[in-house]
Amino acid sequence: MPSVDRHPDERGPASQQGMRRQNLALVLGAVAARAPLSRADAAAVTGLTRAAVSSLVVELMRDGLVVELGPAPSGRVGRPGNALSLSPTGPAGLGLEVGVGQLAACVVDLSGEVRAQARIAVDNRERPAAAVLAELTGLAEGVVAEARRSGLRPVGATLAVPGLVDDGANTVVRAPNLGWSELRLPGTLLGLPLGVQNEANLGALAELWRGGALDVVHVSAEAGIGAALLVGGRLFRGARGFAGELGHVPVHPDGPACACGSHGCLEQYAGERAVLAAAGLDLPPADRIAALARHAAAGEPRVLAALEQAGTALGTALAGAVNLVDPAAVVLGGAYAELGDWLLPGMRRELAARVRVRPWSDEALSVSALGRRGPLLGAALVTIRRILEDPGAPALLGP
Amino acid sequence: MPSVDRHPDERGPASQQGMRRQNLALVLGAVAARAPLSRADAAAVTGLTRAAVSSLVVELMRDGLVVELGPAPSGRVGRPGNALSLSPTGPAGLGLEVGVGQLAACVVDLSGEVRAQARIAVDNRERPAAAVLAELTGLAEGVVAEARRSGLRPVGATLAVPGLVDDGANTVVRAPNLGWSELRLPGTLLGLPLGVQNEANLGALAELWRGGALDVVHVSAEAGIGAALLVGGRLFRGARGFAGELGHVPVHPDGPACACGSHGCLEQYAGERAVLAAAGLDLPPADRIAALARHAAAGEPRVLAALEQAGTALGTALAGAVNLVDPAAVVLGGAYAELGDWLLPGMRRELAARVRVRPWSDEALSVSALGRRGPLLGAALVTIRRILEDPGAPALLGP
Repeated sequence: MPSVDRHPDERGPASQQGMRRQNLALVLGAVAARAPLSRADAAAVTGLTRAAVSSLVVELMRDGLVVELGPAPSGRVGRPGNALSLSPTGPAGLGLEVGVGQLAACVVDLSGEVRAQARIAVDNRERPAAAVLAELTGLAEGVVAEARRSGLRPVGATLAVPGLVDDGANTVVRAPNLGWSELRLPGTLLGLPLGVQNEANLGALAELWRGGALDVVHVSAEAGIGAALLVGGRLFRGARGFAGELGHVPVHPDGPACACGSHGCLEQYAGERAVLAAAGLDLPPADRIAALARHAAAGEPRVLAALEQAGTALGTALAGAVNLVDPAAVVLGGAYAELGDWLLPGMRRELAARVRVRPWSDEALSVSALGRRGPLLGAALVTIRRILEDPGAPALLGP
Repeated sequence: MPSVDRHPDERGPASQQGMRRQNLALVLGAVAARAPLSRADAAAVTGLTRAAVSSLVVELMRDGLVVELGPAPSGRVGRPGNALSLSPTGPAGLGLEVGVGQLAACVVDLSGEVRAQARIAVDNRERPAAAVLAELTGLAEGVVAEARRSGLRPVGATLAVPGLVDDGANTVVRAPNLGWSELRLPGTLLGLPLGVQNEANLGALAELWRGGALDVVHVSAEAGIGAALLVGGRLFRGARGFAGELGHVPVHPDGPACACGSHGCLEQYAGERAVLAAAGLDLPPADRIAALARHAAAGEPRVLAALEQAGTALGTALAGAVNLVDPAAVVLGGAYAELGDWLLPGMRRELAARVRVRPWSDEALSVSALGRRGPLLGAALVTIRRILEDPGAPALLGP
């Protein structure tokens, strides 16, 4: 399981309380990775004594993080014990998403399973941010109520947005496709601490937390095109937190003007608006990608040509990215994952043609299995990961 | 001072010997950063006791790393003491460089000062690697002999090459402009442990170690164009160690064929060969960049146009890099630093036009003060940094 960022000051001599918190995380991590498992197995896996594990498990059970399932289904003779598992109730994470054409919310439990969710198609382009957030809050309320009826208790919320985010300041710096700029979000939503993160980053983290590669360029596209860079299992944010602006990598420097003020950016060839224009389609704002996939599946030549052009442009921009940052894998995520059948051939061709100095294999490019669910799931999992990585942190178990 | 990479296992409980080694590094680091300083000041700066500092200094002096200069020139009353300084003799680092048109070697002392150096112009394109390395060894021999006459004792050597390197395996994976491929280097040279590193990486590290920015795209160009990425003061190597292949980022996807097998790579617009062709110059292989600078300084229109085109292409490719990795600074290093007057205007124009989504200022692009000396200096400093970071490591003080 990948580790979280640790502050340098955590490397100093551990206090007794700090050590107990670390050991709580160790045991909870073992349960998360291997449940069901007995206390004896948890001791073997973590290297802690049986007595220490038992004492830590008492605390984890008290906080509603771990439950006892009854005797472990073990083939090993002489090692009886009640199997431990992550609690299917108790602390949970709330994920929220504002897209250009949708709003979504979901609650996941400690094992990362989605236990309640809602998604509505809505055009957020012309609406004030306050109205968008009010509608999102209403959607979240229903999802949280449903989760609570199942015994879950959301303890944190994270919002996925298609734009540049200053997560330390809880601010959307710029989300051009939503028309948001320097939008500071409230510190809480429905009484839960609220964080914000770029949707591509969250999609990439969702893949990672489900066992994906550690060094990845994760493309997330819908109205805009963003990328998340994972390096050794960590988000690479850049000096100012703005890394991954794939949509404005120049593809044809003398190409069409872009809304950003430049020319020939990737978005002018592979962004949703460009693809729809090239395909000659005028679709309602909600869920244009799904509609585009239907037209492509129907074999409409102009749609196929538009997607071929988009795939080629994506491949060209990604070839530059691969030459620069040398990832182990490139993943096509977000809503565009649904267009993979038509985008991948051009992407693969360009990558093969342009990544020549070092080995590159077709298999290094894949489509995200989570697709458009990735960012929302990643948002909900942020809270779960925080709990798993520091279950003793006092702030995590309220309210 | 930036830290080095530490192995995870160094985070475990420190043994007494391990702690002593850490404290040796602490004291030596204080001397390196603030010399001349007294033992009392070293104690104040490091947080160690005066007695501990004195004991550590005995060891550092015994190993020839620190010397006593006599009473510290301190204005502070009541704090006499003999000032400590890095030894101007003793352990030293040997840097080596194989370029397409040159060979070079230098020795630096503990303070990073170049104490002996040699550089010869020679066309390495058509020669077997063994002959190149033999001539380099001869050059190094002279430089080492000169350094020894000054009381220096080189303890490690690092070779800078313009190509992809697997430094763990001491192998040049591919240096197309030299015609080297999968070339495994000997483990020692002149009896010194020999390492190898990409020249752009070493140029970037040299800048960093002289106080440069921590998050940088450092361009290094001569026959080929490479880049080093520094992230938080560390080299970013990519999943397989091949990051920074700026020369093969596509600039005009339908442009001229590149030796790599692709089309329209940056090297086809800004590489030395492309610039010379566009300038209509046929120069001898040795030091074409200096000659190009002379022609440009003379105001030859075709040369100026060729450099303008190269600067524009560099700016386009770097705009993509900035949008992807969001560095705090871009530095033009290597031999191309000498062409800065003619390359920077186009680079600045393209960066300003294409980095639009987040703030970008002209000053974020600068020319390396070290220029073509950067890689060689960085190579020599690798050994010095190792000594400063772990002066108690047994391997560092032989032979």
